[in-house]
Amino acid sequence: MDKASLVISCPDKVGIVRAVTDFLFRHGANITYLEQHIEDEQFFMRIEWQVLDYDVSDESTFMQIFESVRQEFDMEIKTDFCVEKKRLALFCSKELHCIVDVLGRIETRELEVEVPCIISNYRDAHSIAEKFSVPFYYLPAKNDYEYQQLALMREHRVDLIGLARYMKILSSEFISDIGSNRIINVHHSFLPSFVGANPYEEAYQRGVKLIGATAHFVIPELDQGPIIEQNVKRISHSYDVPNLKLLGREIEREVFFFAIRKFCENKLVKYRNRVIVFE
Amino acid sequence: MDKASLVISCPDKVGIVRAVTDFLFRHGANITYLEQHIEDEQFFMRIEWQVLDYDVSDESTFMQIFESVRQEFDMEIKTDFCVEKKRLALFCSKELHCIVDVLGRIETRELEVEVPCIISNYRDAHSIAEKFSVPFYYLPAKNDYEYQQLALMREHRVDLIGLARYMKILSSEFISDIGSNRIINVHHSFLPSFVGANPYEEAYQRGVKLIGATAHFVIPELDQGPIIEQNVKRISHSYDVPNLKLLGREIEREVFFFAIRKFCENKLVKYRNRVIVFE
Amino acid sequence: MDKASLVISCPDKVGIVRAVTDFLFRHGANITYLEQHIEDEQFFMRIEWQVLDYDVSDESTFMQIFESVRQEFDMEIKTDFCVEKKRLALFCSKELHCIVDVLGRIETRELEVEVPCIISNYRDAHSIAEKFSVPFYYLPAKNDYEYQQLALMREHRVDLIGLARYMKILSSEFISDIGSNRIINVHHSFLPSFVGANPYEEAYQRGVKLIGATAHFVIPELDQGPIIEQNVKRISHSYDVPNLKLLGREIEREVFFFAIRKFCENKLVKYRNRVIVFE
Amino acid sequence: MDKASLVISCPDKVGIVRAVTDFLFRHGANITYLEQHIEDEQFFMRIEWQVLDYDVSDESTFMQIFESVRQEFDMEIKTDFCVEKKRLALFCSKELHCIVDVLGRIETRELEVEVPCIISNYRDAHSIAEKFSVPFYYLPAKNDYEYQQLALMREHRVDLIGLARYMKILSSEFISDIGSNRIINVHHSFLPSFVGANPYEEAYQRGVKLIGATAHFVIPELDQGPIIEQNVKRISHSYDVPNLKLLGREIEREVFFFAIRKFCENKLVKYRNRVIVFE
Repeated sequence: MDKASLVISCPDKVGIVRAVTDFLFRHGANITYLEQHIEDEQFFMRIEWQVLDYDVSDESTFMQIFESVRQEFDMEIKTDFCVEKKRLALFCSKELHCIVDVLGRIETRELEVEVPCIISNYRDAHSIAEKFSVPFYYLPAKNDYEYQQLALMREHRVDLIGLARYMKILSSEFISDIGSNRIINVHHSFLPSFVGANPYEEAYQRGVKLIGATAHFVIPELDQGPIIEQNVKRISHSYDVPNLKLLGREIEREVFFFAIRKFCENKLVKYRNRVIVFE
Repeated sequence: MDKASLVISCPDKVGIVRAVTDFLFRHGANITYLEQHIEDEQFFMRIEWQVLDYDVSDESTFMQIFESVRQEFDMEIKTDFCVEKKRLALFCSKELHCIVDVLGRIETRELEVEVPCIISNYRDAHSIAEKFSVPFYYLPAKNDYEYQQLALMREHRVDLIGLARYMKILSSEFISDIGSNRIINVHHSFLPSFVGANPYEEAYQRGVKLIGATAHFVIPELDQGPIIEQNVKRISHSYDVPNLKLLGREIEREVFFFAIRKFCENKLVKYRNRVIVFE
Repeated sequence: MDKASLVISCPDKVGIVRAVTDFLFRHGANITYLEQHIEDEQFFMRIEWQVLDYDVSDESTFMQIFESVRQEFDMEIKTDFCVEKKRLALFCSKELHCIVDVLGRIETRELEVEVPCIISNYRDAHSIAEKFSVPFYYLPAKNDYEYQQLALMREHRVDLIGLARYMKILSSEFISDIGSNRIINVHHSFLPSFVGANPYEEAYQRGVKLIGATAHFVIPELDQGPIIEQNVKRISHSYDVPNLKLLGREIEREVFFFAIRKFCENKLVKYRNRVIVFE
Repeated sequence: MDKASLVISCPDKVGIVRAVTDFLFRHGANITYLEQHIEDEQFFMRIEWQVLDYDVSDESTFMQIFESVRQEFDMEIKTDFCVEKKRLALFCSKELHCIVDVLGRIETRELEVEVPCIISNYRDAHSIAEKFSVPFYYLPAKNDYEYQQLALMREHRVDLIGLARYMKILSSEFISDIGSNRIINVHHSFLPSFVGANPYEEAYQRGVKLIGATAHFVIPELDQGPIIEQNVKRISHSYDVPNLKLLGREIEREVFFFAIRKFCENKLVKYRNRVIVFE
């Protein structure tokens, strides 16, 4: 299927939708999907089309001829011409349920993504990586390990880093080098509650009746990044901390997978500290 | 706020979005919302705008000048210029939780709708109707009661009939007189399971682990109409039939309210036996 | 039906269940329900029986003959012999959806409780109170209004105070006079997130993907009391603050009703800052 | 931890709880959990204890000394002394998400179960089985394949068969040989809706707003067995059949895993066509 998508963010103004749909119409695209959102006088749109005409079937031609529209409305745009699979690097520590889940979903073709490498500060994930034939790099958190990580990201031409319960804080240099909107973390609480390393213990102490997990883009401030997805599950007084952790894993898996999938489908836009998640 | 909305259904074809947005642009409307859907080569769209220009601010002018676009694409359209509140007639029998809920929400201004009358085949709702100062008509199901109902619908200029656990089957004459897409029923099961009068008993016997309720448009075939909204709640083996009924009421209330609200906001389109529910 | 229930809290020790069930057996009670919970070496149990024998059919006889068992295990106990309806005072301010919901549920007999009075620091609830024939007291928050409130609580022999979006902080004197486990508040966020007066605004800014509400017992520290019930609803980036408030009301209603019902059924036990909620 | 559990089903009668707790008390067991249920004059209980005394620490001794209590109340009982992991045979066809999920959870130790073999009427699962080092048997559905299956079940001393989207109907001989309460199927709809092979197509046609999945014990009548667990996910008109299938897999995985876990924890009791699922 020759499909392409375009995500736009620009100041709101009369005529944007008309200008874009008019452009696509003139270049022989059949619009199959259009979603828009307006917030604080900022306009957002995601539009998908089937390619009927050469002009809008490859990215560089598109960018060139769309440039005048883009400039007129001062748009930031992100395109996806679905040419190749996104490349996802997985970082993990000792808890492996999120990476096992992602690798299993690639196996059953529910997630169309390439995992060129798994990186960990522990050796635990080695056998899983081997099972799924993914190169594994053990990089204990010392010396210049972030430089090595960055080198690997470049070598493997990584589009997205997924922190799959990676219990190590990224430096702000690392984040700015990769780009904040290319790093997704799964945090094991319903943020903004229970920031930090022991959310299940704190949730137990506070006596909450639902526990949750959050997938978010990473910024230098710990667990403060823009939220992509959250979910919760009901608990009762009978859950102790180990039970909370076990149940919480279900939610961690789910929100992590959701966030990765949406990223790969070009459906996420960060705006201030919020994320617009298109359908 | 001078807002208006337009819902379109027509055969899919290149250029529809562009034609409509171009039309609105030329007539000085600022599009604040646009949602589309394509299904079996049929195109659906809901579009909302703020009125900046006289041409698109009143319904009859709009209809007149939009006619050429409408014809070009062979559109069925439904407009709402938010001039006055929709008028909802409530039909009920002995279970009153749905009407109490709707009347309470009108009181707290969560539902902007007019209830000109409550009609029942029992006297039970009389005191509630009185509390909320709504005319109440007791019409036992005999003789020509449907004619009397129809006369009342006309007299009160009713836009929508809400069957709030009304335990009487409407004749196909009644339905076709009012119009199938102007009658919403709440059924006390997760359809298509447990059609008929005793869904909670049947749900208990079958040992389901979730019970549900469904709001749907009414067609002559019992409980077969197009579904607008459904929801469920978790149960366990410890729920007996009276407990199921009690819990089920929560869901009945919720889906009934949802369906009425969406109708009043011009967000429902029936297509075949399915309902498109715009955001 | 002659039913009675007993809730026990005591240090865990071998033989408690056996001692209680043996006692009830010897006095001709048929146990219809039993639920237990152990936490930090503290034992909790709720037991319900059908009365077959005079000894365990009225509260004072029961207390007398059960005393030796109680002392042996150093139990705190709470009994309910279902003799009369609990008396609930509702406190509210300007948002009335919670009180309308509770009064509506009493009307439809989903909640078996007496509301002897509604108290408010605003006049807005007056007409609702009148509709449902409940005495209304307008007590603006000045001078000795808390003394007047306490006097009314005594006069109306109130068992439970429900703070139905009452936007006034109770003094610690007031709380200790009534008793912390007899005051239930509904807070309009998923605690511990968004303590304070503007949770929906904060939820919007933080970009969460679910909003929630919490019913909790009141302690002097604002929004820190033991949680009885919480729930959430999914939102998207398209919800602005007024939409969040509207949707949030659904959850506030639900958790408030749940907490009141459980209180009236003798199913809540506070332990440290957590609440055990029996089925 | 030396834990044991006992599940009881017998006609309801005064004194059962007392008799069992008294027995355990006298034999030095510390009860850590007790849950009961009464339905149609049938009594059900699950009780868990920590072993402090030899008498109740091994199954055969327990059975012998408990026999008099058992007979007195005409109990059916099921014990679990947690001596060894349950042995689960997985049957599948072409859809592999359920078996990948189960094997992944064993890898991360969320499911403590042994999988001695995977059996399929197609070759698709072969590579997955190999990845996780589980013996794989390709048995196309012809000739005496059910005899071969039965022989394998015996050879591998299987406790439970999990039909993980196995698209082949079991003969009633096969079912009665294994025992109906030792075969769990996952069906890809919210039963009793959409029995049969194409539930997602039917759900689409009916226009439901939630789709579901069901884990149930297998009986000879197709998709009519007692339900262990169900769940649903919200959909909208924008989901086509392939999207429904993709989303449905999430629910299939979840309910299948839940049912297997509860079976292994000795928490399921079939009664008539319903299943009591203990906490």
